[in-house]
This record gives sequence, C-alpha cells and structure tokens, in this order.
Amino acid sequence: MAVIAIVGAGMMGSAIGVPIADRGHEVRLVGTPLDEAIVASIQATGVHPKMGLKLPESIQAYGVASLAEALEGVDAVVVGVSSAGIGWAGEALRDVLPVGVPVLMITKGLEWADGAWRIMPDALVHALGPKWAGKLDPVAVAGPCIAGELARRVPTCVVFAGRDRSVARRFVELFATPYYHAWTSPDPVGVEVCAALKNAYALAIAFGIGLNERAGNAAGSVAMHNVESAVFAQSAVEMWRLVAAVGGDPKSAVGLAGVGDLDVTCNGGRTGRFGRWLGLGLTVPEAIEKMEGATLECMEIVRVVGGALDALEARGLLAPGDVPLMRHLVEVLYEGKPVALPLGAFFGGDGALGAPSDAVEA
Amino acid sequence: MAVIAIVGAGMMGSAIGVPIADRGHEVRLVGTPLDEAIVASIQATGVHPKMGLKLPESIQAYGVASLAEALEGVDAVVVGVSSAGIGWAGEALRDVLPVGVPVLMITKGLEWADGAWRIMPDALVHALGPKWAGKLDPVAVAGPCIAGELARRVPTCVVFAGRDRSVARRFVELFATPYYHAWTSPDPVGVEVCAALKNAYALAIAFGIGLNERAGNAAGSVAMHNVESAVFAQSAVEMWRLVAAVGGDPKSAVGLAGVGDLDVTCNGGRTGRFGRWLGLGLTVPEAIEKMEGATLECMEIVRVVGGALDALEARGLLAPGDVPLMRHLVEVLYEGKPVALPLGAFFGGDGALGAPSDAVEA
Repeated sequence: MAVIAIVGAGMMGSAIGVPIADRGHEVRLVGTPLDEAIVASIQATGVHPKMGLKLPESIQAYGVASLAEALEGVDAVVVGVSSAGIGWAGEALRDVLPVGVPVLMITKGLEWADGAWRIMPDALVHALGPKWAGKLDPVAVAGPCIAGELARRVPTCVVFAGRDRSVARRFVELFATPYYHAWTSPDPVGVEVCAALKNAYALAIAFGIGLNERAGNAAGSVAMHNVESAVFAQSAVEMWRLVAAVGGDPKSAVGLAGVGDLDVTCNGGRTGRFGRWLGLGLTVPEAIEKMEGATLECMEIVRVVGGALDALEARGLLAPGDVPLMRHLVEVLYEGKPVALPLGAFFGGDGALGAPSDAVEA
Repeated sequence: MAVIAIVGAGMMGSAIGVPIADRGHEVRLVGTPLDEAIVASIQATGVHPKMGLKLPESIQAYGVASLAEALEGVDAVVVGVSSAGIGWAGEALRDVLPVGVPVLMITKGLEWADGAWRIMPDALVHALGPKWAGKLDPVAVAGPCIAGELARRVPTCVVFAGRDRSVARRFVELFATPYYHAWTSPDPVGVEVCAALKNAYALAIAFGIGLNERAGNAAGSVAMHNVESAVFAQSAVEMWRLVAAVGGDPKSAVGLAGVGDLDVTCNGGRTGRFGRWLGLGLTVPEAIEKMEGATLECMEIVRVVGGALDALEARGLLAPGDVPLMRHLVEVLYEGKPVALPLGAFFGGDGALGAPSDAVEA
C-alpha cells in the first residue's frame, strides 16, 4: 500500500481517487481554496456534491489549510487543479512538496511562453519556481475520461506520458485497475497538445448541431452529420500538424489522447452545448450566458493557440492554410464573426496526411 | 454540360446524382435488377422511395433493360451497386461500357483474392473480365457521406482516390459543388481499406451503448462513453496498421476516409443499432433478426478481414496483438463469443503510433 495525495478536489481529481483507492492505497484528497464546500461535504457524508456520488471511504478529504500535513510521507502526488490554478498550486506546493516524489498532472491546457507552448507539467514546474527547476518532471495523464464515468468505475483507457518513461510506468503500476487501463508514452508534448486542442475542436464539431437546427431541421440520423464528421477529420489533421509544429510526435493524434479524447468530448458535454449555441447563431456573449457559468476551456485554448499561429508560420513550423479550422475558431470566438465553416479550405495543405489535397473545387 | 450515367439506383447512387445534376449535367440513373421499384417510382413521380425525397428533374431514371442505351455517349460513369452486385455489374457492363470513359466507384467493401485484399475499383475491373484488364482503373470516392444528407444538399466533404490522380481530378472538376466538396488522393488502397473497415469498427464502438443499458443505466452524458471512445481510438490505430499492412498509406486513416467516415458511421445508423443489440447481450442471430433485413456490411467486412489476419501475420505484415479489436469482432460475429471488449490488449503493439505501449496493467 502506498500513500497518494491528490491536490484539487474537483471532478477529475476526485474521480481518479476511486481507482487509486480501489488499489488499496491511502488517498488524501486535498481541496484548493475553491474546493472548501466539496471538502466539507466529503468529510461530512463522503459525497462529492458535484458528482452526486459517494466516494470510497478510504479517500480522506483535507481542507487547503492541511496541505502540508496531507503531503507528509506520500509516495506520489496527483495535481488536479484547473489550468487557472497552476500559479496557486506552484506557490502552495513550493515548500511542502516532498523532493523526489513523482507527480502526475491531470490539469489540461497550454500556455504560450518564450515563443513556445508550455504544457501543464512544465507550467507546474515553472510555477514552483527556480528552486525546483530540473528537479521535477511531472507525468501527464490523457485519454478519453469523463470524470463521472471513471468515478462510477466505467472501464476507462488512459495514457501516462512522461519524458522519463520509467516514472510514467511507476504510475501505471500504482494506479491501474481492472477498469482503469493505463499505458505509457514518451511524448508528453504530443499527448498534452492533443488533450488541450480537443476542447477547441470539439466546439467546432458541435457547430453542425446548431447549424442543423438553425436550418429548421430536427436532430436525427439525417441531420448535418456529414458536416460534423468532416470537421472531425479536419480536426484530426490539424491536431497532427500542430503537434508536429511544436516538436511532439504527431502520431499521438492517432490514439487515446488525440481522436479518442476528441471523440469523448463530443459526447454531450459543455463544449458541445456551447458549440451548438454558436451554430444556432448566438453571439459569443449570448452563448456564454446560456452556459450559466460552466467552465469553457475552449475559450482559453483558442486564445492561446490562435495567438501563436502567426509566430509558428513565421518560423516555418506551420504552412499558411494548414489550420483553417483553428483560424475560424479564432474568428468566431474573438473577432465577432459568425459560424461559417471553411470546408473548402480543409485539407488544403500539402496532402502529406494521405488526406486529400489539390482542392480544385468548382 | 456532360452526360453522366450512374449504375445503381440505391441510396448513395441516387444521392450523388443530386450534386451532379446541380452542376448542370445530364444524369442517367440506371437501376439494377433489384432497383425496378425505385426506377418506376422515380419515373412516375420523381420520388426516390427509400429516401422519401423528390430528385431533381434532370435526373432521368432508366430500367436495367435500358442500360446500353443509358451508356451511349456518356462522359463518365458512376457505379453504385452493392458489393454483392459487383459480379452482376461486371457482366452487365462488359460489352456496353464505353472504352476510355472514366469510372467512379461508390461501392464499399473488400474481397480477399490471391493472398491480398482487392478493393472495389479493382473488383469491378476483375468482374469486367480479361478484355478490360489494364484498360480501366476506376476512381474510388470515400469520406463521411450519409446519402440522405447529400441528397438534401447538406455540406459534404469527400475524397476521390485514384492511382492516376488526373482521373480523380477530372471527377472533382465534374462533380464538386458549393455543398459537395471534393479533393483527390493518390492512395485508393488506403482510402478504400479505411472505408471498408469503418463498418466493422463502428460496430465495436456501439457495443458500449448496449453494455451501458445492459448494466441498467440510461443513456446520457454519463454512460459508457469512456469505453466507446477508447474503442474509437483503438479503431483508428488498427485502421492505420491494417492499411500499412496491405501497402496503402496509413495516413489515409487520419482524414476523411478514416476517422471522418468512422465518426459519421457512429451517428445512429444501422451498424450502431446492430452493435447496441450485441452489447445488450443478444446473440448474433437474435441481433440480425432485430435488424429486420437491414444490410449489415460489417458482417461481410469482418469475415473478409478476419479471414486474412493469420496470413498477414504469417507474412510479417501484421504483428501478433496488432489488431485485438478486429480479432474480437471475429469472435463475436463468427465464433459465438459474447461481447467482452479486450481493452487491456489495446495499444499493445510496438507503440509506434505514439499510442501507448508497455501495457503493464495490474
């Protein structure tokens, strides 16, 4: 039995506690300053209020004031804060995170820093400050994993990606269960870029749902699925190109972290609902209002990725026309343009994906 | 204006007639012996009875007895028979297909012949007989295209794949419209293998829907989506490997013919309904009965592909463990085994896809 601390008691941080607890480990689930109500609920009844689910009794919840105590003597740490909370996590962990303990990052997102994208494991090390530089290389977890399903022990397949694959393997050894299947990858950049991009592309795939309703049609087996799936294919191609552009292994787009996670994100979650509203013709502020405060990761990802495209092109890492769908997402979310999927501009690059090129449409 | 003959008046043959007609071409839609009722309906009222839709008036329907007449003076021919009808098409066209006219194959499927898979364009040439050998190389069309949507002018993206890309380009020039976007690919093998495999893999992806209901759960945003999307990712990986094994460009799996068509096939069509029944625990005969006579392409594809796996392994073109999902489909459809997705065996190959390897599950 090992002792595992999870920092962040949101949906995913709490959900991953279930297989860890089922493996017989002691789980210390530590809330952030935003998680006090969640911690109180788990301490009182064992129920995670956002998931509406009783957690295993071996998961002990700690308030943020008990962070140092919760980290004493742990064998591994999982960080499951939101991407906006990375700065907080760095400060909070700087002096209490035990040296030499492996860290798993659940947090998804990208930062643009020093002319490159910084993946969340690296963002955490950066936030921890100079004294941690070179002393920690967190492993990332990615793949199609709806938290509410994992917490209910629905079979789930994930990949642990680390530059030091032996650390990734250690997490597989610690956490894998008969329902929590885990593999390792040596490509944290590719895996994490895909995991971040999926929130942007799932938004675009959902535009077709709204466009179909806007045209007066009902949902059904004949709708605008041809549009949605063409956008899905273009999303896979753009994931491939963007991963390659920033030095990851583009083949990570063909697997759990790429098309797998993209597919699950299209299954009726908040990103899809937001995309539907935009496809229906609502403005971005109107659509945000409809979402009633739900976290919209896609807004941040499109901002960060979109803001880097010109620089990537200027350095020859992307060709003009390589990512017309991401360019359109920037137009829709940040330039007030209506949804008008640039289907004719898809696959218009070098054909290097076996994807069609030579767009000679009439 | 050109004159285009379409042989086969089923859903897809008739649907592609809509953009062709919209381009101003004369369209001659010729029924097979199985299409007589469809032809009679179109001749009488313009309505395609299976689609419940009035076709453009410039689409003229011909009975099979008028095949020779319909092919006189045509500029291009589209073949849209079922895969079971290829033999008939070869015989029927052998002496009336004009020499030198480009042919577009809609038919999807694979044949195992002479130790290799034969894609449908090649199957047609084979069926045409020795006098056509080397004189015709039909172009294939693939991509996410629900016929009922194309016939309603829903924006659709397809790829025309031909060894002689200039012929593929000719079809783009003839058929592309503002809603029918088309590109070309020089990889008919990769594109056609993906297009065939999608019917098998979409079946496996739908197992999760039935498994979820069988466990007593309702459909919804928390269901077994994690399972479905892990299977989607594994499907993409297996498509990649199978295309590579038979000499196609595996990158064709990352685009319209691969993940795009796979995605659209998961959208509530007959393959998904069949997969749900199997996931619910019905035997194959019981599930087939529930489908009330619907064409189940997946049965034939799994038979042809499954039957070739040992030979491909023996020749070193596949490694053992490369395609555990396809192996499971063979077990379910042809060996009476219940659905039990081998999640732990996924991604267990060489890790060459950036996909995780080193399955060291507990």
